[in-house]
Amino acid sequence: MRRALELAARGPAGPNPRVGCVLLAPETATGRAATGTVLGEGWHRGAGTPHAEVAALADARERGADVRGATAVVTLEPCDHTGRTGPCSVALVDAGVARVVVAVEDPNPVAAGGARRLRDAGVDVVTGALQDEGSRLLAPWLSAVRRGRPFVTLKIASTLDGRVAAADGSSRWITSDVARRHAHTLRAEVGAIVVGTGTVLADDPSLTARTLDGSLVEHQPLRVVVGDRDVPAGSRLRGPGGDLVHVRTHDPAHVLQVMQAREVRHVLVEGGPTLAAAFLAAGLVDEVHAYLAPVLLGAGPTAVGDLGITTIRDAIRLVPTEVLPLGPDVLVVASPAPPPGAPTENVRTSTEEEH
Amino acid sequence: MRRALELAARGPAGPNPRVGCVLLAPETATGRAATGTVLGEGWHRGAGTPHAEVAALADARERGADVRGATAVVTLEPCDHTGRTGPCSVALVDAGVARVVVAVEDPNPVAAGGARRLRDAGVDVVTGALQDEGSRLLAPWLSAVRRGRPFVTLKIASTLDGRVAAADGSSRWITSDVARRHAHTLRAEVGAIVVGTGTVLADDPSLTARTLDGSLVEHQPLRVVVGDRDVPAGSRLRGPGGDLVHVRTHDPAHVLQVMQAREVRHVLVEGGPTLAAAFLAAGLVDEVHAYLAPVLLGAGPTAVGDLGITTIRDAIRLVPTEVLPLGPDVLVVASPAPPPGAPTENVRTSTEEEH
Repeated sequence: MRRALELAARGPAGPNPRVGCVLLAPETATGRAATGTVLGEGWHRGAGTPHAEVAALADARERGADVRGATAVVTLEPCDHTGRTGPCSVALVDAGVARVVVAVEDPNPVAAGGARRLRDAGVDVVTGALQDEGSRLLAPWLSAVRRGRPFVTLKIASTLDGRVAAADGSSRWITSDVARRHAHTLRAEVGAIVVGTGTVLADDPSLTARTLDGSLVEHQPLRVVVGDRDVPAGSRLRGPGGDLVHVRTHDPAHVLQVMQAREVRHVLVEGGPTLAAAFLAAGLVDEVHAYLAPVLLGAGPTAVGDLGITTIRDAIRLVPTEVLPLGPDVLVVASPAPPPGAPTENVRTSTEEEH
Repeated sequence: MRRALELAARGPAGPNPRVGCVLLAPETATGRAATGTVLGEGWHRGAGTPHAEVAALADARERGADVRGATAVVTLEPCDHTGRTGPCSVALVDAGVARVVVAVEDPNPVAAGGARRLRDAGVDVVTGALQDEGSRLLAPWLSAVRRGRPFVTLKIASTLDGRVAAADGSSRWITSDVARRHAHTLRAEVGAIVVGTGTVLADDPSLTARTLDGSLVEHQPLRVVVGDRDVPAGSRLRGPGGDLVHVRTHDPAHVLQVMQAREVRHVLVEGGPTLAAAFLAAGLVDEVHAYLAPVLLGAGPTAVGDLGITTIRDAIRLVPTEVLPLGPDVLVVASPAPPPGAPTENVRTSTEEEH
């Protein structure tokens, strides 16, 4: 399963889940650990391409391996519907696979039912193998499918005294190379980056995902501008990168509807303070990534604009899931505390005990 | 030496360094590691009490141990001057100690010279054993002795969006129990806690060092109020705790002169924003302790007032020495970057590679 998860992580951020599949020879694959001789491997390379299971079956065929009686180890329950590709459940049954080991069950009502169809066809199905790791990899996608709206990450990059820019608006750079590179790996994993028009006019950002050497990575997120003001003709946003989408609204829910319609599963809100406050006030932030630099400014804008909160009792309290030193900076990842009595299925909060 | 450092850490924060001493039997104490049969132990319990070496010699006498030919393992070079107690160098020579292993050499011009006197008397002296650990334990005291002013720690406790209170001034509590307990251990180690009159009037703090159950620890730091306004009659600052000192100035250097005159070696500046900015702008902050809570407020005062910095180029850049998760919060400890070409003797920056 670890290998299947590694394969899954190679997949791009997109409308579809990132899934990996490993086919194991029948005589060696036993138990949930599901180790053994590998017959074929595959992962989902993005919408319109074969699903991981089908890719693994094709890989096994190319290797000349016989998959009859084999075990398929797959990070997400095989789908049971015909979209741009046929149902994986049927492909596995047709190939003669005897056993399927699954990390995460598919919550998608359109695609679910694969496990049932496999069992009906006499295939042994085991679910829940490395479920936590699988859920973590798929967290934004799972959240988006369950709630019918994209998963929202709010990114903050500020000084120790809470400034996201100096008094004159200059902010390049508060955080270190290491922290900014880390932020670019997140950009490469999301479907869209969202900023307000104020940020566009003040910073002229390019909102691209880049590699170490500054070149664009293959997958570029949508670049989404929120607000009424126009994006100037010479803006970097009009240069190389993902598609530019201008949503002329101040309503975060409307922004997410537009994103949902474009099959975006994970949205990264990068600023500025007004947009951050609007998403927070609407309860539409699922995770905060705060990059904090050991820098002091004493003046300048802060990361979050007015939330209408006047007293400490009403503060938004988050649950941290990760504290990660990045060069001289530190990244704090935190999510809204689930309401009392809520199911604790959200994997993001399940690692709280680390701290 | 580890044992000697443990003993040293039992000592109180005060005008004198915290020092520990272990006497080892001659046949077993070899090399810098200096392990062996313990004949006596001692540590310095505060001004006017015996120094660690003298306390260890007394302990050995009580145990009936013969210390002739023994090795004394001591965290700081034995003193060579007569203050409220006699020179430790002489005490060790008189007792017949054959060997002295030292972690940190004494930079204090008044007390230094102990190693030379010991060597002149035929005692074998080894310095630099666990020097980094020894220097870390003594860092504020060493800094104070070298520079002739107290070491200054600035404490910040803020939300992820940089607020130290809500818009109505309420701030109890932004950080967690765990972080606040940690802050109390620091209070118990400093000679004085300094706040501005604004903080006194807004928060009515008690500025005491307390244990887990809320009772006062034995050592209480001076409580220092800076500014012109009076401390109201019913203030908690006038209740149980350390002595109250009101310095009617706005000049941080003047505050430190007053502290130096009272033999304070380590000052903790706890707020508010105006006082923090004054110390920072004067270049009189040696270390920042930023407790950051996963909380968002969107409004309210920030930790540091105007520093006169208007552009990112002029930001105060610090070097982090520690990132410590504390319950849901995280503590970032950082120090001003030493000017280029400055000697790197400052132990606080020697752990930079950890990050």
